[in-house]
Amino acid sequence: MIKKKIAILGSTGSVGTQTLSVIKEFRELFEVTVLTADSNAELLIEQAKVFLPNSVVICNEKHYQEVKNALLPLGINVLAGEDALCEVVQLPEIDIVLTALVGFVGLRPTLAAIKAGKDIALANKETLVVAGELIMQKAKEYKVQILPVDSEHSAIFQCLAGEEENAIEKIILTASGGPFRGKDRKFLESVTPALALSHPTYDMGKKISIDSASLMNKGLEVIEAFWLFDLDISQIDVVVHPQSVIHSMVQFEDGSIKAQMGIPDMKLPIQVALAHPRRIKNNFRRFNFMDYPQLTFEKPDQEVFLNLALAYKALEGGGVLPTVLNAVNEVVVAAFLNNEIGFLAMSDILGEILAKTNNIKNPELDDFFEVDRQSRSKAKEMISTNTILFHNKH
Amino acid sequence: MIKKKIAILGSTGSVGTQTLSVIKEFRELFEVTVLTADSNAELLIEQAKVFLPNSVVICNEKHYQEVKNALLPLGINVLAGEDALCEVVQLPEIDIVLTALVGFVGLRPTLAAIKAGKDIALANKETLVVAGELIMQKAKEYKVQILPVDSEHSAIFQCLAGEEENAIEKIILTASGGPFRGKDRKFLESVTPALALSHPTYDMGKKISIDSASLMNKGLEVIEAFWLFDLDISQIDVVVHPQSVIHSMVQFEDGSIKAQMGIPDMKLPIQVALAHPRRIKNNFRRFNFMDYPQLTFEKPDQEVFLNLALAYKALEGGGVLPTVLNAVNEVVVAAFLNNEIGFLAMSDILGEILAKTNNIKNPELDDFFEVDRQSRSKAKEMISTNTILFHNKH
Repeated sequence: MIKKKIAILGSTGSVGTQTLSVIKEFRELFEVTVLTADSNAELLIEQAKVFLPNSVVICNEKHYQEVKNALLPLGINVLAGEDALCEVVQLPEIDIVLTALVGFVGLRPTLAAIKAGKDIALANKETLVVAGELIMQKAKEYKVQILPVDSEHSAIFQCLAGEEENAIEKIILTASGGPFRGKDRKFLESVTPALALSHPTYDMGKKISIDSASLMNKGLEVIEAFWLFDLDISQIDVVVHPQSVIHSMVQFEDGSIKAQMGIPDMKLPIQVALAHPRRIKNNFRRFNFMDYPQLTFEKPDQEVFLNLALAYKALEGGGVLPTVLNAVNEVVVAAFLNNEIGFLAMSDILGEILAKTNNIKNPELDDFFEVDRQSRSKAKEMISTNTILFHNKH
Repeated sequence: MIKKKIAILGSTGSVGTQTLSVIKEFRELFEVTVLTADSNAELLIEQAKVFLPNSVVICNEKHYQEVKNALLPLGINVLAGEDALCEVVQLPEIDIVLTALVGFVGLRPTLAAIKAGKDIALANKETLVVAGELIMQKAKEYKVQILPVDSEHSAIFQCLAGEEENAIEKIILTASGGPFRGKDRKFLESVTPALALSHPTYDMGKKISIDSASLMNKGLEVIEAFWLFDLDISQIDVVVHPQSVIHSMVQFEDGSIKAQMGIPDMKLPIQVALAHPRRIKNNFRRFNFMDYPQLTFEKPDQEVFLNLALAYKALEGGGVLPTVLNAVNEVVVAAFLNNEIGFLAMSDILGEILAKTNNIKNPELDDFFEVDRQSRSKAKEMISTNTILFHNKH
């Protein structure tokens, strides 16, 4: 395999650091060309000293001097601000851009990377949620591959190998069910951020942990899968599988199902995306059935967890509804983490805003940004004014 | 897809009749060129009247006149005797020979078909058990494909699609565990053929049902997989999975596991083999997790079921030991079904004969036939003389 040169957008987050730990094990196969961080200057500096990239970007400009002072002497270009993300992904030597940014902020740099002909290892699901049609169309136009890093989409991607000629009947996304599986709405009323952050299987960032607890993560993944694999909505099923051992499945038109399985560990899908189409021998811990003698499956409880149904509804409505879904969700998750609203208020606010949205059919890129802005401000307004309705005492 | 012309060796058995029911649903894709039966003349005639093959073979010559009288007026060639199997598989119009014969008798016609350049849909696992090296070498030489029909090997075959460049770390064959899973040797002492024939999941022939109850079926499948997928013995694991929903798995060198799943139904692997490399949309019943909310896994109990260990041992010893394993097993299973010996006596006799065999390294084709003959006669002798030791009262 020729050495691949990687740009990691969001290198200080959970997926970013795990990506670097994969690259560290295979220095003969991968090389880091770009590292970027939002505001964790300290870790960015530390990573850059180890991997010696061509360039780093610190998005939060107030850390610029600190990063520059530390890295410029090492011959590393140091840039600041979100716009710089769109520049660095175009560096001619880059083969793959791994986007591990959290939220909508991933859209512009992903588009810039696609237009520069870079393959995308996509860990930033919000990009596809908001602008899936546009991204997939540009990827086709510029002949770049979108390689999923989410474990569920990586599973489906792996199951589709060698099946290019065979029609998909449906895909089955597995969901851990999160820490509140089996609970009722009464219970959810009073859960705290700390409780919601205790995900049973994967080691994840805060935003995705809350999304996992509220099933929004699965809703976003449904939308992501819709675009990635060019499916109808009716072809996307979700099944709760608390052990998270089967990472997802594809059912073909002959009824045969292929599943991809293993220990829940993000390092595998990261490696699969970076090394595609080859697999690389590694020393990750191996799956053993004797550690998992029982795998269980159940329907997601959409009466308690409203977010999954809201996501299907937004996908069905199309246009800018998924943008609204994502924007409001980002705001309410932040508000929940900040103890401003309760757990159930997250889907209540989202449902209300979605219901009141005037959809735009065939939106342009600018529409996404405008709708994103408006939705965030609507959500913030509801949070600040409806104090009594949405506050829950912890 | 161009219409494929199929020869079915053993069309009146369980796999044979299920193959015809698949073909019946896809008459525009498949055409029957040859049907053969051991001695079930009545069913053979009935099948030939529906599918109008070019030729039929009835192996048991005493039914020749009956079959000839019924089918010759329809313009169907009627042949008799086992040697005729080797002739009919060479008909120039045949694309695929599906070998659903039971036992060692499948070897010669399979070799004849390979030498005539026909792809093989292999449901006769004994052929690979006895002469796996020879078969795979001839298949390579004559550039024919060996397409597995066993659900386990079909699962592995399906999981390997698109992974041609990636090394297998191991395969995991699933076993239902048979009707006596969890029982001890005391219990097995007194089981009857009727009890042993009650397989929990698949609809199968008698020989394979007993093999399933004694775990010999899994032992034969281990040897079959060894040859089909060119593995080391240490790369073949067996896990008991009573629901038989995961049909088998492949673990690649990056630790990623692919599984093929579905409702236990032989029609799917039959269709996969016949239609390869395309899948065909069908109306078989679909798998639903709500019918299987729990999948369980356990180690096979090799202290109680000795056959699996004997099969690994025969494979390890190589040479003619797998031939001995298969020959003795065919005899003891027949004797058990005939109430001549008890259930445990089957593996006792097998173990004793295997231990006393002088192995032949690098056997030739004639050696297989000679060792097969000798092993059968040794087994029959032990059965007839050791009346007290091996009889169990039912």
